[in-house]
Parts: sequence; structure tokens; C-alpha cells
Amino acid sequence: MRAVVYRGPFSVEVVDVPDATVVEPTDAVVRITTTNICGSDLHMYEGRTSVEEGKVLGHENMGIVEAVGPAVTRIQVGDRVSVPFNIACGTCRNCLTGWTSFCTRTNPTEGMDGAAYGYANMGPYDGGQAEYLRVPFADVNLLDLPAGTEHENDFTMLSDIFPTGWHGTELARQAPGDDVAVFGAGPVGLMAAHSALIRGAARVFVVDKEPDRLALARSIGAIGINLAEGDPVEQIMDATDGRGTDCGVEAVGYQAHDAAGEEHPELVLDNLVKVVRTTGGIGVVGVYVPQDPGAANEGAKEGRVAFDYGTFFTKGQHMGTGQAPVIRYNRQLRDLIIAGRATPGFIVSHELPLDGAVEGYDRFDKREDGWTKVLLHPGQAA
Amino acid sequence: MRAVVYRGPFSVEVVDVPDATVVEPTDAVVRITTTNICGSDLHMYEGRTSVEEGKVLGHENMGIVEAVGPAVTRIQVGDRVSVPFNIACGTCRNCLTGWTSFCTRTNPTEGMDGAAYGYANMGPYDGGQAEYLRVPFADVNLLDLPAGTEHENDFTMLSDIFPTGWHGTELARQAPGDDVAVFGAGPVGLMAAHSALIRGAARVFVVDKEPDRLALARSIGAIGINLAEGDPVEQIMDATDGRGTDCGVEAVGYQAHDAAGEEHPELVLDNLVKVVRTTGGIGVVGVYVPQDPGAANEGAKEGRVAFDYGTFFTKGQHMGTGQAPVIRYNRQLRDLIIAGRATPGFIVSHELPLDGAVEGYDRFDKREDGWTKVLLHPGQAA
Amino acid sequence: MRAVVYRGPFSVEVVDVPDATVVEPTDAVVRITTTNICGSDLHMYEGRTSVEEGKVLGHENMGIVEAVGPAVTRIQVGDRVSVPFNIACGTCRNCLTGWTSFCTRTNPTEGMDGAAYGYANMGPYDGGQAEYLRVPFADVNLLDLPAGTEHENDFTMLSDIFPTGWHGTELARQAPGDDVAVFGAGPVGLMAAHSALIRGAARVFVVDKEPDRLALARSIGAIGINLAEGDPVEQIMDATDGRGTDCGVEAVGYQAHDAAGEEHPELVLDNLVKVVRTTGGIGVVGVYVPQDPGAANEGAKEGRVAFDYGTFFTKGQHMGTGQAPVIRYNRQLRDLIIAGRATPGFIVSHELPLDGAVEGYDRFDKREDGWTKVLLHPGQAA
Amino acid sequence: MRAVVYRGPFSVEVVDVPDATVVEPTDAVVRITTTNICGSDLHMYEGRTSVEEGKVLGHENMGIVEAVGPAVTRIQVGDRVSVPFNIACGTCRNCLTGWTSFCTRTNPTEGMDGAAYGYANMGPYDGGQAEYLRVPFADVNLLDLPAGTEHENDFTMLSDIFPTGWHGTELARQAPGDDVAVFGAGPVGLMAAHSALIRGAARVFVVDKEPDRLALARSIGAIGINLAEGDPVEQIMDATDGRGTDCGVEAVGYQAHDAAGEEHPELVLDNLVKVVRTTGGIGVVGVYVPQDPGAANEGAKEGRVAFDYGTFFTKGQHMGTGQAPVIRYNRQLRDLIIAGRATPGFIVSHELPLDGAVEGYDRFDKREDGWTKVLLHPGQAA
Repeated sequence: MRAVVYRGPFSVEVVDVPDATVVEPTDAVVRITTTNICGSDLHMYEGRTSVEEGKVLGHENMGIVEAVGPAVTRIQVGDRVSVPFNIACGTCRNCLTGWTSFCTRTNPTEGMDGAAYGYANMGPYDGGQAEYLRVPFADVNLLDLPAGTEHENDFTMLSDIFPTGWHGTELARQAPGDDVAVFGAGPVGLMAAHSALIRGAARVFVVDKEPDRLALARSIGAIGINLAEGDPVEQIMDATDGRGTDCGVEAVGYQAHDAAGEEHPELVLDNLVKVVRTTGGIGVVGVYVPQDPGAANEGAKEGRVAFDYGTFFTKGQHMGTGQAPVIRYNRQLRDLIIAGRATPGFIVSHELPLDGAVEGYDRFDKREDGWTKVLLHPGQAA
Repeated sequence: MRAVVYRGPFSVEVVDVPDATVVEPTDAVVRITTTNICGSDLHMYEGRTSVEEGKVLGHENMGIVEAVGPAVTRIQVGDRVSVPFNIACGTCRNCLTGWTSFCTRTNPTEGMDGAAYGYANMGPYDGGQAEYLRVPFADVNLLDLPAGTEHENDFTMLSDIFPTGWHGTELARQAPGDDVAVFGAGPVGLMAAHSALIRGAARVFVVDKEPDRLALARSIGAIGINLAEGDPVEQIMDATDGRGTDCGVEAVGYQAHDAAGEEHPELVLDNLVKVVRTTGGIGVVGVYVPQDPGAANEGAKEGRVAFDYGTFFTKGQHMGTGQAPVIRYNRQLRDLIIAGRATPGFIVSHELPLDGAVEGYDRFDKREDGWTKVLLHPGQAA
Repeated sequence: MRAVVYRGPFSVEVVDVPDATVVEPTDAVVRITTTNICGSDLHMYEGRTSVEEGKVLGHENMGIVEAVGPAVTRIQVGDRVSVPFNIACGTCRNCLTGWTSFCTRTNPTEGMDGAAYGYANMGPYDGGQAEYLRVPFADVNLLDLPAGTEHENDFTMLSDIFPTGWHGTELARQAPGDDVAVFGAGPVGLMAAHSALIRGAARVFVVDKEPDRLALARSIGAIGINLAEGDPVEQIMDATDGRGTDCGVEAVGYQAHDAAGEEHPELVLDNLVKVVRTTGGIGVVGVYVPQDPGAANEGAKEGRVAFDYGTFFTKGQHMGTGQAPVIRYNRQLRDLIIAGRATPGFIVSHELPLDGAVEGYDRFDKREDGWTKVLLHPGQAA
Repeated sequence: MRAVVYRGPFSVEVVDVPDATVVEPTDAVVRITTTNICGSDLHMYEGRTSVEEGKVLGHENMGIVEAVGPAVTRIQVGDRVSVPFNIACGTCRNCLTGWTSFCTRTNPTEGMDGAAYGYANMGPYDGGQAEYLRVPFADVNLLDLPAGTEHENDFTMLSDIFPTGWHGTELARQAPGDDVAVFGAGPVGLMAAHSALIRGAARVFVVDKEPDRLALARSIGAIGINLAEGDPVEQIMDATDGRGTDCGVEAVGYQAHDAAGEEHPELVLDNLVKVVRTTGGIGVVGVYVPQDPGAANEGAKEGRVAFDYGTFFTKGQHMGTGQAPVIRYNRQLRDLIIAGRATPGFIVSHELPLDGAVEGYDRFDKREDGWTKVLLHPGQAA
């Protein structure tokens, strides 16, 4: 089958690899209809991780079940399904309590809980930027979707970024009526803003410096805050009569840059501490890493982020972090899509055949204007 | 009336000051029967805050209501009461949602929510290390206790440290059956350990290096971990078969010292991130401050604490911080004391008349052996 | 001042009564700009309660603060305010934990927690269908609104029915993505449906038999289920592929009627038990009473409602009940109105001067076509 | 193998039946070391259910894994395990959200969610009062225990009644510091009382009329209330200064009897509504059924229970019901046992070999004095 493989920094290739097959009795194989390039794929693409050459990339996957193992009883061949990016066993302590993003059994990496497809440090699993994908523990992991092709570009957000954005609002313990600050208007930030509004936010402020992304934020009812036009904290403070917001979402991660383009891993956390009111919550779904040899300073190389902790404490804020347990949210989000009340596909900017992956990675990585979210359709002629 | 006033670094004095009186119609005056010296009083005593000379200290107060203003209708003269250290208006947004520790109205200090008696930056309120104390918004703030003198040394912990220790377990979202790590076996850490066990913890590990404090921890059923005998993280990891604990409480604060006695504000947070399992919670009630001119490094002077944030994120942990809203817990804790199921007075080491305050501050500040918790009884002959 | 007083079954009158004044130091007097007739006013109007003749009615009130007592410090003369229907002391145990609808101090009626304006058994407080209203514990109870007259018909729903409908969804523990069944499309049911959608429901089914009310339900995005056209449970089961809804709200109360017009107090609870899925929640804000001499059977006269409890248990459902603690929700709902995301005024059908109350009660009680919600504006010329 | 089978009303027999075997790849077979007779087994024994003759009884099971199917990867042969009474698939919507007691896939009975071993209407599964038991979805369902035989009589309570009692306190939303009323001092009521105290209750009142059961309640720190000595509501009201308790647990079920021995299905609910304070919660784990041909009145035959709903509503109480999802609690309770902080085995009164089942059922059903809880040890010589 054809698949997108990592070749080294700034290099992917679409090549023939061995077919995905049922290995364990609890496996399924999914024929991929849509697989997205994720912002976090770019961490690998840019050579900033330890991902091995030859890895098939892709953790945002959906498609049609092609085959199942003998112990698969819930999911059936022919089902249209969304594949959560987390690979969960469904029976360890974390899985049983809804933390499938921290499965203790599926990732053999020392000291790591949580596995994923085609991702650095997340276990030996190939990704789904390919014609087929092997899915372990299929009954646990696969979410069934209505047959057909309707809502394809909405449903494809269920594998990762829509639940991830939602998780940001959950970690921030957003309540209805809240004012919310979302830092970052990339795909995850936009999904967080969409989530916040669906959950009953009063106002959602989305901070970025890219006009096209801010326009997308405004298109769903959020308020765009252009950090290139002035301190975003001040802008939001002004809009809230000096109170600040009730909570906030970090959707940028450790590679945050200031207006001058310099990398400051503590920048967004500092801004959130300032802008969120006393007792408020901060949900962090932008990625931070324990080791980052390419970081700007010694501390950051070891994952240390020297944000303004004293103010964080004095304001009595709280903070939740980490990868989203997709299964906790994806059924509900699917139903909101079906009911017409969620439309996460609004961020899709480009749809390409699988062979378009090379161009897709390149232009998405360069943040070319308008390249917000790229979908690959493996079954589609080039 | 007689009162303990701050005179400058390492100097308090017991002097005559004007009597506490009813000023506002919602005030009460409480005749103090017991008032404790708190570990956080030592921050002021050591000159590490901006507290003004002449301030009457003391925020851990209880006594008998001596007078009430005309708008006080719930509390009556003669009631025995505990006085929460937070001064709450009861009607602002934070108070109405149970966050009396972040009252937006009682502290006129710019940018600060939350007031307290006799404390730096917490408003112009005199403390209760005195014969009498003025209590604003008495109906909101005062907790009624059974008449008499029974449980005095337990009830006196209701004004601050028992609810503060409890808040640590709440911020960590401790659940029954959890293993809990508490860093710091000072009064607040011991109250956190007592709380954790009352709430149904399976095991509570208390980390400190003082044998007398560890002995107190063991006396209530906790497991003492002596950091002088080896890395406390390793000790707890060994005891939990490498899993770590389900959650943890920070009861040390920014003046954390390593085994060699050097100050490292990030030390305890680092240890908690290591020792708490994936998805677990960390409750921070040890104090961190936005400005600390006496800090060990440039970042820490501005409240920046460069702990291992990358691992915090990768483990999907969450963290809650800040001063405890005493009213949220003190009634229930009172009832547990009355029922004989909580005995927070176990930490009391010394009871002195008010005039003993000078000696009490001096020896408690020196952490003299066995000086765990000092109570002052203003009505008691010297 | 002019006020609407109860004269006996099916009789109200607009007469001169003594002016409302500041009695206690914590009181305010509010000049009423808008006061609504509530469905529960009709229980009194129809003579089905023990309300005394001469009582000034009206518990859905808003207006401008005209005077305040000397202990009122938060609210100021001239403020535009919403008056929650519950009268809360703010300092009893229930108030301090957010249950202002069950204040233990403001209602002197034996065995009753919770007070209200102008209402049977809810204490000696006159209502606000009048030119002025005395508001006890003004700093606790009053919600400040933006100055001016904007959103008047939306804000007037903040005193009772919008928070009451919202409380129904809260008691049912509705989560985003849920399908919700609301029984009753009267004002409270419509507010519950509006609330459910704001909180992120996937689909909201609203059951009634009045076409005008069902049309209102549909106008806000809900699905109208006409019980005159067939068993509503079957209709909803069909629409949910036999699964039923995730939760449900009871917005009818003990005077439920079947399609044939016969009163069956257990009817709506039975339908909710059937239509809500296993483990789902039921929020009951329709009123049930401990004594009802006019009830259809002996049990119901004593408040006994023989619904299908065996199935309720077997399905593992849960149920929450009772009057809404308005303060818990009204600030957030106000902010949603200001942000344009909530528009509860959509139910207003008639606006009358105070002297129009007699006609308003008469025609609203007869459920005349289109008389959904009646507002009285005391300051408005007849 | 030998097994206890149901022969008809008041008749069980220990006979040879075909060996339990691995049928599905996700199955395990457990060699039973301990299996308890449950109070709910007596419903079947007394002929008050539709259970078929020949059914192997027993849903409170533990033992050693004897064999596993090829898709079992977490649990291994030789593991000592507790078998939750619920049979869960682990992958349906209810299971994925922690409601394994309402699994939608394992019970083929029309309209029923949730399966169990050896139980009427709970699916075609044989029970564990036998030498061996087949366990479906073994990786999902089995809880691993420390090897050996320590704590056997405590661990055997993990399969049902300890989690069931705990669930009662959870459904009542008991918080630390609460006063709790538990109606029924049978095994489940005693487990609820034990749970409430472990979770930090201030006082737990346990209501029954059997002195030996009340003595057991007192032995764990609860307060026994003997209903034969006076109205239990009055007794508890007196002990709480007229306030009532904060919450309550129903551990009796539909076969409640008054002091005179007459069956009144609404009796216990009425008492709970009276004794629980406004806004309090009621957790119902005593069993109620939709059909009960042997019931005392027409309504009760159809599962209708005419309790005082009007007061329930007026007091703003809430109620949760249904079978416990054992997996949500059993790991934590196991850890509390290992830590020595839970000792549920205190209720064991008799231990018999499997062949003792006939006598055990007979004498337990007759509530012979001191027959509180009967364990069967299949491997033990008669």
C-alpha cells in the first residue's frame, strides 16, 4: 500500500510499504478515507523530535473498516469509523477511568503512558497517512459514524483536534457564561474556541497574529485579538473592564514566539496568568516537552519553563494539562455535528490526494497564507 | 488593650493599643481566647515582606463575641466563634461562589483579591494576637462553636491551617483510596496529611527532614519519609512499586531548601511532578510570591519558578493553588472535631499567655526542637 | 403606592397600599420597572394555596434602586437591578453553599427553608407587582445590570424563570452533546429548552399540546413534540432510534393533565422515566406540593405521587428537584444576554401597565391563545 | 464440577454440572476460592423472581485464574482476582463512561441494560457458587489481587456489597463532615455505613431492628438506631438538634416492613425524605422492581411506590438509584483493605464448604440470629 513516510528533517515521501493487516485478535484494519496533517506532525517534520526515519506518519484518521480480528465483536466490517489518535487498551487503570490518553499498556517506551499512531515516543505504531491502518483494540478505540460520506470534513476532526480543543476548555473548567481567552488560532485553538462557544461561553477572545486565522475565529463568533496590534493582555483587559477572563486555553505550546519572532516558552503561560481572573482555570493543550535540545535556553532544553508562578499562586488559579482522551468526548461531538450544532470542518483549507502529502507538509510547515488545515484522501485519484 | 505588634525584622513587642471597636454596622468585636502563631507570620517576622511597622499581627483567631453592630443578626454577643483568616464581604462575585479567600471588595490593595487580619498586602486590618479583634461582616465570617471551652486546641485550627491543609487535598482532587504525597511536615503539611486520611486516603507519605515532625505525622497514621535519609521521590517510588502516588500536596512554599540547606524554589514542585502519577493532581498551599527581593536567583525575585513543566505536561497532571477559602470547609471540620473524628490539636506544642509572644516568635522562628505550633491565650495570666 | 393584591380565588385588584420602605439596615427599596406574572402566581390566583387575602403578589421583579439602608455597601441608589425571587440572608449554611433557595433564616414558616416575595408559605414578604419593592439583604440579593433600558425584556427573565429553566438542566446534569427531553412548553419549559441549547445540547425535544408554545420552542432550535398527535414517549423514542434521551426536565408539575384533560400527578414523571436512558438524569422544576386538598386522589392530597419507581431504579436514573437558587446562575445568564447569546425575552407575548394586571391574570389563567408571558410595567401609563 | 442450582421456591441443591470453559477468546475461567450468598439471592430463593430452574446461582465471586482465551492479555493464569458481579463488555457507551452496571451489550434481555452472573433477568450467565466460573471479557472485568490468601474475607466483599454500599454513599453525594442516615443494617447497609465513615462522615446513623446487626454497626463506629424502640426519624432528629442528616442511604428495598411486620414499599423512602435536610441527597441501593406480583397493593405490583414526593420536591432533595458499577470503586477499596483502612470482612458470620449451601440458604433466609453473611469456599472439604 502507499503511505507517507518520514525521511529526515523537512523530508517526507509517499512510498509503497507492506499492507496493514490484522495481527492481534482484537485488531481491525481501516481503509483510510481521510487523514489530516496535524500541527504536531510538523514537530517531527522539522526534525525537532527523535522520530525514526521510515516511520509512517499520521494520527488523525478516519475510514471504513476493512477487516477485523476474531475477538472484535462490536465493530463490523463496513462500518464507517473515526480513529482516535490515542491507542488505548481499554482495561488498564487509566483507560477504565476515562484517561485513554495515558493508557499504561500500549506504549512500551520506558516511563511513558499513552500511545499514538505514527508519532515520536508514542509506541511502535504506524500512522494512517496511508491507504490502510492497523487499529489495535478496535472495539475499544473505534467510534462508529453514520454510513455514507456526509460530514466527512467535520467528522475527520473527531480523531484529534476537535476533542483536543474541547479538552482545553475542559481542563480550564470552563462553565457556561464564562469569558474565555484562547491563545493560538491554529487548528487546535480554533477548535477550542468553537468548543467554548458550543459549551455556552459568553465571549471567546482568540489571540494570534495571522489575519487569516483571526478571520476564521471571527467566522464562528469569537473575538479576534491581533497581538501584532498591541499587547493581547491589555486588549482583553480593556474589553472586560479590567476584570480579565474567567478562564483560558493554551493552544500554542513550547515554541511560542513573541511579536518580534523570538522563541519564549514561558510567554503564553505568562499572558494567561495575567489575563485570567483570580480563581480561574487554564487549560494547556499546546504541547510542552521534557527534553528539547533545540530550545532557546538551558532550562527550556530540560523542559523547564520559568513562568510567573508567584502570580499564578497569588491569584489562586488552577491549571490542567496534557493530551486529550479522545474517547471521552468524540461521541458527543459526533452527535453535535450530526445535529448541525458543531461544524469543525470550517477550518479545512486544502484537500489533497495522498500523493499531495509532500507538497502539503512543505506548504503547511511554511505557514503559507491560507494553509490552515490540510486533509489527505488516500482513495482519491491524484 | 494589649496586642502583639511588628517592630521590624526579628522584632515583635506586646504593647497597649487602642481597643478594637465596632466601626461598621456589620462588624463584631471578638474577645480572643486563643490566637496562634502561623508559619506565614514568620515571613513577616523575618522581614521578608513589606508589612508596616506597628501592625498588630495574628490571623488565626478564636474567642467570644463581645459586641456586634446593628446590622448583625445571625451572630450574637456571647457566642463562641472561630474567625476565618480571610475577611470576606459575602456578596461579591467571588464570595457568592465560595471563594471567600479572593473577596474582591475587602482588600483595597491594587490588583489584590482577598483580605486577612494582620498580614502584609492583605488590607488594613489589625490582627488578633491581642485581647480583642474587630471582625468585619461578622454574620458572613464568624463560625459558631459549641459554648464552653471543650476542644479549644482543636477548634483553634479552624481559622486557618486545618482548612488550609484540607484545601491542599481538595486542590489535588484527592479521592478515597488514593495514595497521597505531602511535602512538608510543618503545621500545614500535618493538617494536609490529617485531612487526607480523614477523606479516605489509602496511604499518606509525608516528606520532611525533622524527626519530631515526622514523628507527629506517624502519630496520625501517615508514613514519614525522611529526606535526609535519601531522595524522597525514590523512597516513595519504592513504596508504591514504581507507580508513584495518585496526587500530592505542596506544603513548603518558595523557601524550599534542599538537603544541603540551599534555597531552591522549584525543588518541591519538581519532586511532586516526579512522584505523582500520570493524570494526577497537585495541590499547592505552600506560599509562592510574585516578588521576592531576597530570592536565590533573578527569576525567583520576580516570582518565576523554573520547574519541570515539560514533564508536568507530558504526564497530564493538573495543579491548583492559592489561599484556602476557610468558610467552604470550617463547618464540616468543626463537626468532625465534635464527633471525635478529627483532632487537629495534636500539633500543639506550646501554649503561652499573650506576653509570651516575644519568646514564642523567637523560638518558633528558630525552629527550636519541638516548637511545632504555638498558641497564645490573651486572657491567661502570664 | 399602587400594587396588585390577591382578593380571593380568581380575583386580584390594583389598589393603593403603604409605600415600600427601608426597614432593616441591610434593606433596599427598588422602583419596579418590569414585573412578570408567573405560572406559579396562577396556583394562588386559582385558590389552590393558602395565600392570605390582601397579599401583594409578584416575585419576578426588576427595576432601579430607590433607597438603601445604612449597612448596604455594594449596591447603590440608581443601580439597575434584577431581584431574584428567593430572599436569601447570605450567611446561613444553605446560603453559604449556594443554596439561596433554601435559606434557613428568612422564612419564619415552621419547617420551611426558603423565602420569596408575594408567595404562599414563603414568608411575610410583599410582592413586586407594585410601584416599589422592599428587598431584604440587598447586597446579597440584588444583581446589578447595565444602566439604561436595553435588554429589559430579556433581563426581566433573570429573576426567576430563566434561572429556573436552567436549574432544570443542571438538576438533570445535562452535558454537552446530550439529547434532552423537556416536558412542558410553558415559560419555564421554554427557558429550560433555551438553556439546554445554550449549554450544548445536541437535540432538545419539547413536549406540549399547545401549537403556539410548540412554535416558540421551534423558534429557538428545539424540536416540538405535540402530545395531542400521539404518545410523546413513542415520538421521542422513534426520533432517537429507540435509545431515548440522555436526560430530561420536568416543567409541568403536579397539575399534569393527560390528552383527555384529566389530572394525573404521576403522568410526566412516568413519561420521563420511560424516555430517559439508563443512567440518565431527570431535573424537576415543575412544582409538587406536600398538601393539595384539591388533588385527584387520596395519595395526591398528601403529596404522594405513585410513579413507576421500579423502572426508575432498574434504569439507574437520578433525579434532582426544587426551587432554583437564582444567584447561582443569574450573573452568567446576564452576561450571555449582554453578549447576545441568550435571548429569553422571546417568550414575551404581552406588556401591560400595572393596571392591566386584572386582565392579565384573567386571560393568562385561561391560557388564551398567544398569552404566553405577561409583563407589567408599573411606571408605564395605562 | 459441583455447583449450587436453583430448584424452585425455597430449594437449592449442590449437583454436578458441566465444567466452566473458555468459550470466547476474551473469556477467562476462574477457580472459585470464595463465593458469598447475597441478600438478593434470597429474592430468587423465595420464588419472588422469574429465575429459571437449574440456574447456577452466585454473583459474589473471587478466586484464581485457571484459563484464559487467546485475546486475554492483561490477566494471566494464576492471578488471584475479584470478579465484579456486573458483566461488562468494556466498549459500549455505558461501559466507556464508567457505567459497567448498565452495559448495553452483555444482557440480551429486551429492554435491560446490565448483566450479572447467576441472576434473574440479568442474562444467560451461570453463577459462581461452583468450583469454576466462566468470566466474559476477562481483561475488562477482573480485578487483580495480591497473591496468597491474606484478606480473603475482606477481598470477597469487593465483588458486590462493599462497592454497592459505597455506591449508596456516592449516589447520596456524601461529603466529608456529613451526618448520614443509613436505613437497613443488612450486609449492604453495613457496607454503606463503613463506606460513609471511611469517606469522612461526621456521624453515621444506622437504622434497623435486629440487635445483632445494630451491634455490628456500632462496632465500626456508627450509631445504631433501633426502630423497635421508637420512630427512627424522631430518634435521628433528636440526635441532630432537629436538623436531620445531610444525606441518606436506602439499603432495604421494596420489601420494607414496618415495626408491626407489614410490608410497605414506600416506608423507607418516606423516612429518608423526612430525615434528610433540605438540599440533601438520597442514595438508593436497596432493590426496587418494575413488576412484583407478590406485592402488597395494586400500584406496587407494577413497581409504583407512592412516597411523599411533594415533600421531596419542597425540600429540594435529590436521589440517585441503581446497581453499582463495581469497577468504578473496587480498585480503590482493594487498596484501602491492603492499607488496613477498610475491613469489610467484619460482617462475615459463617464460612461453609460448597456443600453447605443448602443449609446456608435456609438459615440465612430465615434471618436466624447471627447469620449475617455466609461465605462458601468451594475448594474446602465439607
